[in-house]
Amino acid sequence: MPQLSEKGIRMPASPIRKLTPFADQAKKEGKKIYHLNIGQPDIETPEIMLNALKNIDFKVWAYTPSEGTASYRNKLMQYYNKLGYDITVNDILVTNGGSEAITIAMQACLNPGEEIIIPEPFYANYNGFACSADIVVKPIMSYIDSGFSLPPIGEFEKLITDKTKAIAICNPNNPTGYLYAREELEQLKELCLKHDLYLFSDEAYREFCYDGREFVSPMHLAGLEEHVVVLDTVSKRYSACGARIGCLITKNKELYQAALKFAQARLSPSLEGQIASEAAVDTPDSYFLAVTEEYTARRDTLVNGLNQIEGVFCPNPGGAFYVVAKLPIDNADAFCQWMLESFSYENETVMMAPATGFYSTPGAGVNEVRLAYVLNRDDLKRALRCLEEALSVYPGRTQA
Amino acid sequence: MPQLSEKGIRMPASPIRKLTPFADQAKKEGKKIYHLNIGQPDIETPEIMLNALKNIDFKVWAYTPSEGTASYRNKLMQYYNKLGYDITVNDILVTNGGSEAITIAMQACLNPGEEIIIPEPFYANYNGFACSADIVVKPIMSYIDSGFSLPPIGEFEKLITDKTKAIAICNPNNPTGYLYAREELEQLKELCLKHDLYLFSDEAYREFCYDGREFVSPMHLAGLEEHVVVLDTVSKRYSACGARIGCLITKNKELYQAALKFAQARLSPSLEGQIASEAAVDTPDSYFLAVTEEYTARRDTLVNGLNQIEGVFCPNPGGAFYVVAKLPIDNADAFCQWMLESFSYENETVMMAPATGFYSTPGAGVNEVRLAYVLNRDDLKRALRCLEEALSVYPGRTQA
Repeated sequence: MPQLSEKGIRMPASPIRKLTPFADQAKKEGKKIYHLNIGQPDIETPEIMLNALKNIDFKVWAYTPSEGTASYRNKLMQYYNKLGYDITVNDILVTNGGSEAITIAMQACLNPGEEIIIPEPFYANYNGFACSADIVVKPIMSYIDSGFSLPPIGEFEKLITDKTKAIAICNPNNPTGYLYAREELEQLKELCLKHDLYLFSDEAYREFCYDGREFVSPMHLAGLEEHVVVLDTVSKRYSACGARIGCLITKNKELYQAALKFAQARLSPSLEGQIASEAAVDTPDSYFLAVTEEYTARRDTLVNGLNQIEGVFCPNPGGAFYVVAKLPIDNADAFCQWMLESFSYENETVMMAPATGFYSTPGAGVNEVRLAYVLNRDDLKRALRCLEEALSVYPGRTQA
Repeated sequence: MPQLSEKGIRMPASPIRKLTPFADQAKKEGKKIYHLNIGQPDIETPEIMLNALKNIDFKVWAYTPSEGTASYRNKLMQYYNKLGYDITVNDILVTNGGSEAITIAMQACLNPGEEIIIPEPFYANYNGFACSADIVVKPIMSYIDSGFSLPPIGEFEKLITDKTKAIAICNPNNPTGYLYAREELEQLKELCLKHDLYLFSDEAYREFCYDGREFVSPMHLAGLEEHVVVLDTVSKRYSACGARIGCLITKNKELYQAALKFAQARLSPSLEGQIASEAAVDTPDSYFLAVTEEYTARRDTLVNGLNQIEGVFCPNPGGAFYVVAKLPIDNADAFCQWMLESFSYENETVMMAPATGFYSTPGAGVNEVRLAYVLNRDDLKRALRCLEEALSVYPGRTQA
């Protein structure tokens, strides 16, 4: 039997999947599970987007240009320029989800063995994309006590070597929900200019900023045009994760041309996904107002509820729909498994993502979990009650 | 400005795109262009597939499992088992088009620097996927005089080194249309077993076999289960190139698990693409009969027409919808460009793909072009007339 590649062997499996067999078993036993473990929102996709899909009228389901249709890119340009990105259609490359945008950016910018610095905890699939591109993720610790704010620039400086090629941020952040402030981005800008680094900005959760807080993108920072690569997706914006439409944006012409070659090899993003995503740009503001209101209320329910449980600490994040909370437990992996395997309260339990999967420093996040507030408030309250009961009887409980 | 990666620099641009500016200019000048250069069929997508897309009834456009929905994989299994592949749902991984299936297979099986042998001329994007995976394509020459049949196994043996990890075929072949015979596949089987190599079988054109010829897959060959990876797509089968739904099939459980990890990193293929592709499996046989009949007639028109032009030779291929023809010209790149830039007949011209883009041996295919018979017969006849006129006045014409 031929051997797998080393990459095929060391490619990380999705950490979120580890608990799936235990969840399946719990379901078989008749337990109701509150799924706070995943980023699949329950929010309905805008009608305008679904209707565009239902009303497709092509007879031949054809390729589109590799960079995306002119029509969709034009509409996207309007969307981004309303946000002040000041881009042209030729700065936008439509991709198969945000995932492909990240992969292409890594491959086009970093040589095998080169390094990208990412504040941890970070979106676990960055590890997979980095493995696939044979590049090295250098984590830089952010801390729950500061709400996972940007680590001091001095700490970044310590990590920079002649192999460092890029810094990546996810803003608002998955898994922490942290929304970077303009000053933090300005600091990153100076750092990237000083060391001539790319700045990758994963903005999948851009629409989800709360309490009237301002969203700032590196695209808003003058002088960083050649360095910034925005990685985006319609997945969360329109609750359209299954559409697999994302994009890569850069004003760096040389980089754009390189990225385009990767896009040409895989021919095109989906036609119908682009048609629907183009229509989605006209989603009325009222949709986002309602969604933001709903998420704000959920966040408040979840964060307040968590902090009322003895021994639990959860910062109040400014964006996305995740929180990372510290629990009075010995080990988040063991605890999350135990919740599914050995615990129930009124025949219900909660599935959470152990934060260890979002850290690459061994041992980090061992008493933290990520919770996605993708359920309605009543369910969140039930889940909180369940969690409180679980913590009161968990054998691995620690002193607060 | 930060530097691109070496991969970003050496990634090949699509060779088919090179002529696009000349085609755009010709159009501006009011010339009608017969597009025989691309693999985008004009055949209508089956209604059953388009209707499934129009009738989607989900409210949340959600992720699917990374390996594809259970329902679609089950339907696909039935499709493949009707062909005698004898697989289970757990052997099928749904991908973002055939392109992603190829990329994942290369990454999971070959280490950077390892080699894959591919008969040339071959589908040009294999170069892009290989560059992306940092692996090396070793071309093995197939010849127009034999209709591009499989090179002798002795020639393969000469190319095999300790870095050789796989052989890839495209069957029926893009760009030659050649349909491999069972004996040829049996020879490849022995070779792969002897040297413990993976056999990648790109079967995008499986449905397009003519003259009652039998399609044989390496999946039909007993004893090769651990070695075969089938790479497939709905793009050509249902004229649904823009759906971006493909799959990877292997009975090698270890490889499947590795491929699944790559799939998990990018989350999921599109939901609506899978719904439509699942419905497409029920496309009535009458659709394929009509399509095959149409393509056979087109092929006959094109191949006969080409061979009637003085100095032109075109083998009569058994499948797909391409031919590679030898023309009495000095240089196919120059000729194809000249056809767009400097020639017209009754204000019409023909766009073809220079075969050089499908060879990686320098200088090979310099007097060959690939023609896709994706136009109706009347247009094909006009295009042939146009080509004949062009050859009679082309300044770089050679002696036949």
